[in-house]
Amino acid sequence: MINVTVWCEYRQAKFQDDVRAVYPNGIKEAIKDFLDKDEELNVRTACLDDPDCGLNDEQLNNTDVLIWWAHVAHHEVPDALVKKIQERVLLGMGLIVLHSGHFSKVIQAVLGTSCSLKWYEHPTNCRERIWCTDPSHPIAEGIGDYFELEHEEMYGEFFDIPKPDSVVFTGWFNTGHVFRSGCTWTRGYGKIFYFQPGHEQFPIYYNENIQRVINNAVKWAYSPKRRPELDCPNAKPLEEI
Amino acid sequence: MINVTVWCEYRQAKFQDDVRAVYPNGIKEAIKDFLDKDEELNVRTACLDDPDCGLNDEQLNNTDVLIWWAHVAHHEVPDALVKKIQERVLLGMGLIVLHSGHFSKVIQAVLGTSCSLKWYEHPTNCRERIWCTDPSHPIAEGIGDYFELEHEEMYGEFFDIPKPDSVVFTGWFNTGHVFRSGCTWTRGYGKIFYFQPGHEQFPIYYNENIQRVINNAVKWAYSPKRRPELDCPNAKPLEEI
Amino acid sequence: MINVTVWCEYRQAKFQDDVRAVYPNGIKEAIKDFLDKDEELNVRTACLDDPDCGLNDEQLNNTDVLIWWAHVAHHEVPDALVKKIQERVLLGMGLIVLHSGHFSKVIQAVLGTSCSLKWYEHPTNCRERIWCTDPSHPIAEGIGDYFELEHEEMYGEFFDIPKPDSVVFTGWFNTGHVFRSGCTWTRGYGKIFYFQPGHEQFPIYYNENIQRVINNAVKWAYSPKRRPELDCPNAKPLEEI
Amino acid sequence: MINVTVWCEYRQAKFQDDVRAVYPNGIKEAIKDFLDKDEELNVRTACLDDPDCGLNDEQLNNTDVLIWWAHVAHHEVPDALVKKIQERVLLGMGLIVLHSGHFSKVIQAVLGTSCSLKWYEHPTNCRERIWCTDPSHPIAEGIGDYFELEHEEMYGEFFDIPKPDSVVFTGWFNTGHVFRSGCTWTRGYGKIFYFQPGHEQFPIYYNENIQRVINNAVKWAYSPKRRPELDCPNAKPLEEI
Repeated sequence: MINVTVWCEYRQAKFQDDVRAVYPNGIKEAIKDFLDKDEELNVRTACLDDPDCGLNDEQLNNTDVLIWWAHVAHHEVPDALVKKIQERVLLGMGLIVLHSGHFSKVIQAVLGTSCSLKWYEHPTNCRERIWCTDPSHPIAEGIGDYFELEHEEMYGEFFDIPKPDSVVFTGWFNTGHVFRSGCTWTRGYGKIFYFQPGHEQFPIYYNENIQRVINNAVKWAYSPKRRPELDCPNAKPLEEI
Repeated sequence: MINVTVWCEYRQAKFQDDVRAVYPNGIKEAIKDFLDKDEELNVRTACLDDPDCGLNDEQLNNTDVLIWWAHVAHHEVPDALVKKIQERVLLGMGLIVLHSGHFSKVIQAVLGTSCSLKWYEHPTNCRERIWCTDPSHPIAEGIGDYFELEHEEMYGEFFDIPKPDSVVFTGWFNTGHVFRSGCTWTRGYGKIFYFQPGHEQFPIYYNENIQRVINNAVKWAYSPKRRPELDCPNAKPLEEI
Repeated sequence: MINVTVWCEYRQAKFQDDVRAVYPNGIKEAIKDFLDKDEELNVRTACLDDPDCGLNDEQLNNTDVLIWWAHVAHHEVPDALVKKIQERVLLGMGLIVLHSGHFSKVIQAVLGTSCSLKWYEHPTNCRERIWCTDPSHPIAEGIGDYFELEHEEMYGEFFDIPKPDSVVFTGWFNTGHVFRSGCTWTRGYGKIFYFQPGHEQFPIYYNENIQRVINNAVKWAYSPKRRPELDCPNAKPLEEI
Repeated sequence: MINVTVWCEYRQAKFQDDVRAVYPNGIKEAIKDFLDKDEELNVRTACLDDPDCGLNDEQLNNTDVLIWWAHVAHHEVPDALVKKIQERVLLGMGLIVLHSGHFSKVIQAVLGTSCSLKWYEHPTNCRERIWCTDPSHPIAEGIGDYFELEHEEMYGEFFDIPKPDSVVFTGWFNTGHVFRSGCTWTRGYGKIFYFQPGHEQFPIYYNENIQRVINNAVKWAYSPKRRPELDCPNAKPLEEI
């Protein structure tokens, strides 16, 4: 069993009618719903307004893969929690950051860059076609040459991220922009995937291809190995010197 | 002209006789001395006990490439300064981190990992042979297949760093360890080089090969381009939608 | 001085009126013309119908950077010449492959993949916007966020290439496709750049941005270092064993 | 079930007593023996002197992962077969190349480089310590910080290979050399692993760690996806132009 925690800010779904109309119980439950169909996954949700953000030490220690969606309240996530998450990733926990999570303190700490990008919203006319640019990557299993999102917020380059290990997906937008939409990294013993689609006003997380990618990503990001600590051990010579 | 700031902690040279014996004016002046021979470089030094650590806004803004050596007082470098340096790197300033600087807050912020490693010291019997594993990299210009350091502290794998763009040098130690001794990364518009040799009790910075590598690295890390800001601009469609 | 050989197939300009109309002396002379303005470059041209394809041993040995444009006669390039070029690259010669050269035997040998891609031509309605996705790369010096080509053949993913060291440019096409339009690799001691724009019926090589990129690429691909040979030397122990 | 073909030259075990003493039925059977314990694998062996080298079209089409060990007869492998194997890799077949296979036509075609290296043999005194430098890679599952080989031929840098996706293992030799001993690449839809240990006079393939790595590598290199062809399809616009 892989223990997955789907963490969402869960603010807009409470106060914005248009968001609640699409995600009545928040994006977190929409993601849990499709992941629950995978019998190898044990999925729980957590959000910003839970005690300790739903991520106290025990909860973190019981998380193999953490999924992170956030948008309007990045600054409310405590720095101490960010540091703990970063350490868990380096010790081997998987991390999947979705959409506007690109500007969260969590991914900024783990990647070390600003993760800034260009963006543009339109209620009806902004479309994306997601091209698979690393077709044999495990995260692309079951995904064809490309798939389309009829409505999506535009995210455009330059995307200020470290060079990914793999750019699994590259987005084409009808606004004339391109974007590295699906990127992987390894940090310490942990695996990280950033996936750009997921604007809160559109039913992105009900899309079959999106669900497939996120499910694949959870499996890929899971690692049974854990690093015991992050310190610098004083070593002994292994040869006579 | 490339403006270079050589920043050193400069504590051990004050209080430890054995260090002062090797570097009477600190490692910073030893590095400045050989860089000064390159007429394209304008070199100044700064250290922890200078006002504002010798890195106030004006001083930072006038730095194209920052060299960083530190060891016993990483925690005394103010977090606000670390953040400023990180931002400058993302905007295009070059950064060269030497030896025990691997555990500085600066490189940890920029790379996002713990940068931990194994280590072992011996006053006389620990040797390193540095192999060039990316011979056509600009940083390796003028360097042969390998060169040797008669005395060096051992740094060993696993080295907790993001996958480098290039592992220019790989270290062999007579203790039975290996190490990615010269590594490059790009972050934002900035270029970063980590170079492992440089224990304060040994005359590493007087070694011709070491001097050549650091001089090459300064030239490589310099970039004339600067990113104007790190924010996320709201973009306009470039096509009719 | 950097010795540059601009090699073009130079067939279509002889027999196709529409191509000759754009490039009266072939693409090779159009490229030579703008490179000649750089005083550090010593540029000559060569083509398929020259004796020995204009690339006998002396000519190859006097080439620091080879530029390759070809389209309809890839199969006429002798295998023995392909092998010689591949060896020169591994020994340190720079290689820049343009547009339809993606399907040349030279790049296939050097990269080891099919280099296949999707394509679509339209005489008037196919446009490209080239985004810079590695802005501080030397090849992108002087290039802004993006530039546009009013007419270009569409090249689309999946592009079957080894993972590039850098994807300096990513192409957006109005046909709905994306493409890794500017890619770098290192092979042996040699540096390689593939640059997608350059359809023979459009005045691509008169575009200022295109000229800037190719000029930058020549400087970047040049390396003063040469590997002496490609064999496996029997080595002596460097330590007592 | 994953269909694995273990291909070995199988010449030295016939004619050299010292090799036959270690591998009575050749290295191929030693590898088959331990892979057979994995119930998800369906393993067969083939060798140079089999009809069609044991790799006719049907046999190749029924191979998901091909393991390649060869040494003294690289030149006897037909070029047409090399080309077929290369195409299969690009279409999705996994490839694992062992030890002296580094100089086979198969890996040279697939990687495009000379794959040359330094080497040194000693019957008793040459030792290797293999460090894990990408501990969370699937190929390193179950492997600790390092493991040792009491006898191994030295392979040393510079190793003329394309930059690996991951350097899973780095070798330390008591001769004073280092080597990128375990390297991965993706080419087309295929995954490739090169693993340096395996000199024919030493019982390397009976070592538990070696067996674990090769077994892991087979699982990692297997991909269910196949590319239909390697040609360049003429595409239709996906947008109105």
